[in-house]
Amino acid sequence: MVELEKIEYKPVSIRDLLVEMKNISELMIDLAYSAALFHSRELAEDVIELERHIDTLAYRLNMNVMLAARDIEEAEALLGVSAVSSAADKISDAAADIANIVLRKIGIHPIVREAFKRVEEQLIRVRVKPGSPLSGKTLAELELASKIGVDVIAIRRGERWIINPKGKDLIKPDDVLIARGTLNGVKELKKLAEEGSEAGG
Amino acid sequence: MVELEKIEYKPVSIRDLLVEMKNISELMIDLAYSAALFHSRELAEDVIELERHIDTLAYRLNMNVMLAARDIEEAEALLGVSAVSSAADKISDAAADIANIVLRKIGIHPIVREAFKRVEEQLIRVRVKPGSPLSGKTLAELELASKIGVDVIAIRRGERWIINPKGKDLIKPDDVLIARGTLNGVKELKKLAEEGSEAGG
Repeated sequence: MVELEKIEYKPVSIRDLLVEMKNISELMIDLAYSAALFHSRELAEDVIELERHIDTLAYRLNMNVMLAARDIEEAEALLGVSAVSSAADKISDAAADIANIVLRKIGIHPIVREAFKRVEEQLIRVRVKPGSPLSGKTLAELELASKIGVDVIAIRRGERWIINPKGKDLIKPDDVLIARGTLNGVKELKKLAEEGSEAGG
Repeated sequence: MVELEKIEYKPVSIRDLLVEMKNISELMIDLAYSAALFHSRELAEDVIELERHIDTLAYRLNMNVMLAARDIEEAEALLGVSAVSSAADKISDAAADIANIVLRKIGIHPIVREAFKRVEEQLIRVRVKPGSPLSGKTLAELELASKIGVDVIAIRRGERWIINPKGKDLIKPDDVLIARGTLNGVKELKKLAEEGSEAGG
């Protein structure tokens, strides 16, 4: 049931759209590298979904840019905004290309895996079980960075994505967390997220 | 005196080429964003130069990949390597697009600057004067990360680039350091790098 996002003109600020495109495109590179590294279809599918989202954002941004340019000077300065948004779009395409290697089940050469391996940091994708001690808490309450050395870089909630979530953002049951941290840290996060409802929490 | 790099077939490992392309393309995005943020022609020119370097690496990598594929299975796995290298190439193109906004002197809209501003971290590009206390020391000896909270992410030595330098790498007079850190940290690094030869060091 993959539907194309229906695009409507929404009066969102150009700044917000640009920041979102920039952040998502950077996240996509990380996700794509990890997808290749761990042969993860799930991560690869996330990348493809975000690529569609970037296209929607680019459309909205271009609408807004056109409506905003009122004189020659402003139009020229706004050309820079368009160039940045199209660069973010290219970056997201590149990430999608990598994700497609994984989805097409082309064997990932050990060289690629080696090139993507980061000794210091691991990326993890984990679904929060309803009974998990993470569920219903804000990131500020959980203090995952200081307690287990893990940074939540995105939350996927159904079709919605929260990129670079803030302290006030709440983790809900069935959220998918994308987080980065030390090997022990991400293991601990996985344990916490998957502590089942049977055990309560 | 811009010359195209003369490309020769050098038997470098595919892994090394891929790692270098990946690292450079990531660095280029950071440099391009900072170039736009600070209206820095120097950073923008670095990006353009690295873009040419990426093209050379891509050429060498493709040569090596073709020579390495000896049977169908290996050829298929190596397709993944090519896909990753072409993704790094796309990313570097996107970075060059952003750098070109700066070089073409199109006004950078305040929105772009705002989108690229990172409160936590600053990027700096600084040339090491011959008398600087940094000159002639290895990164391990200097301990810049722990002492002033700054991470040297690249060293440019004439036409050569050292990306993600290691502790054993030496800083030489006239090296250009590209470093990331807190505002105070990068200020301190600039001071150290520019302590002149007059004062000795």
